[in-house]
This record gives sequence, C-alpha cells and structure tokens, in this order.
Amino acid sequence: MTATLYVCTTCKAGETHEDDSQRPGARLHRALSALETPQDVQIVAVECLSACKAGAAVALSQPGKWTYVYGHMTDADAPDILTGAAAYAATDDGLVPWRERPVIFRKQSLARIPALKLPAEAAE
Amino acid sequence: MTATLYVCTTCKAGETHEDDSQRPGARLHRALSALETPQDVQIVAVECLSACKAGAAVALSQPGKWTYVYGHMTDADAPDILTGAAAYAATDDGLVPWRERPVIFRKQSLARIPALKLPAEAAE
Repeated sequence: MTATLYVCTTCKAGETHEDDSQRPGARLHRALSALETPQDVQIVAVECLSACKAGAAVALSQPGKWTYVYGHMTDADAPDILTGAAAYAATDDGLVPWRERPVIFRKQSLARIPALKLPAEAAE
Repeated sequence: MTATLYVCTTCKAGETHEDDSQRPGARLHRALSALETPQDVQIVAVECLSACKAGAAVALSQPGKWTYVYGHMTDADAPDILTGAAAYAATDDGLVPWRERPVIFRKQSLARIPALKLPAEAAE
C-alpha cells in the first residue's frame, strides 16, 4: 500500500498573486515534486483542502491509518515533509513516534482523523 | 452506509478544568449525544483530533466521501452540527451544496481531505 501526500495547490497563505502558479500552495507542490519521492509515497495535487486560514496545507492519508493535516507549510519545508511522509508510510497505523516526527509536523498539525473502517472490515 | 461524526472529547479550547468531563470537547459530546442522532449518522468519541489550537473539534467522514474537520465548536452548536452531519450523510461524495451547509460549517472549516480509494476500487 502507498501513502498519499495531498498538497493544496490553491493555498494563498495571505499572499496575492496574479499568476496562480506563484501561489504558495503551487510553489510547495513544485518544491515537493522536484525532490525524490520516498518509496511507498505518492504526491497528489488537490485544489483546496479547505484549510485556507492555515495554508499552505498538506495531508497524509492511507487506508487503515490515521489521516493527518498540516498547515503553514512553505517550499523550504519540502524535504522535511517528505521525510515525515516516509515515516508515516512505514507505520501500520499512521502513528509515527513523536520524536521521529519532523518538528513542522509536531508543531503545525491542523487535525488528525481516525482510520475509517473499510466496508470489507466492517462486514467481518 | 453510515457517516461518522467524530467528536474530540479532550478539547480544552483554552479553558482549564480539574474535571476532564467539564472540558469543552466532553461537553460538546454530551450535548450531541443528548439530541436525536440523524439517520445514517453515528457519533464516535475520540481522544484528540490534534486540532488543539482550534478546539472543540469535530470531523465528518465516510468511505468514498470527502472528510471534513471543523473547529471552534461549542455545545450550543450541537443542533447545527447534527443538521450538517445529516446533510453530509445524504450526499454521495460528502460535498454538501454551500447554501445548505450550516453557517458554522461554512465559516469554521479546519480542513477537508479527499476520499481515499478503497483497495477494492484500486484493484479494479
């Protein structure tokens, strides 16, 4: 299974740009895409994660694991975001030990959501 | 299928209580549980949604739908939260038309996360 790193490409983070490609969210997505994607992680661009007051925002999600949303990310955080995504992908439940989380993940969590039970599990 | 309304019972929302049952998150959970739960909605208490700076927090989630997280909720919002949860449960994708969302859902979104593809779908 592969963990998905969602990146909001429309995040403005309080900046004003005539060119949407210069938005902080779009810049963050480019910075992440320019680096080597960790094994078992896929990067998916999303138009709006509805975290507009706390952008730029990213989310980590995978079936059977807790979902995490992080805010106030910048392109300079791209390496740490990928390190954190790789640690997340390596867990069974999405719960990375606190000390192994990048500082930006420890301090800039917007929310986490429990793993949904998949229909197959719910029927067991 | 049933939509899940997660309620963070540990949210402090800046208040200090010696008795954990008086925390705003716990009070919100009680207020929600005291009302009639809409059809196709289940309320699930969670210890920490990691939205501590924006508590009390709730999340709406269902397989195949967008997940939503809302913050700064109070027990007075319980009826509106359930109305919004029922509208969410009635959708195919979690996207309730803007005008049909409770005002607290329009204004107090912390984040939304795309639906994960379930393994069964991914294998198709």
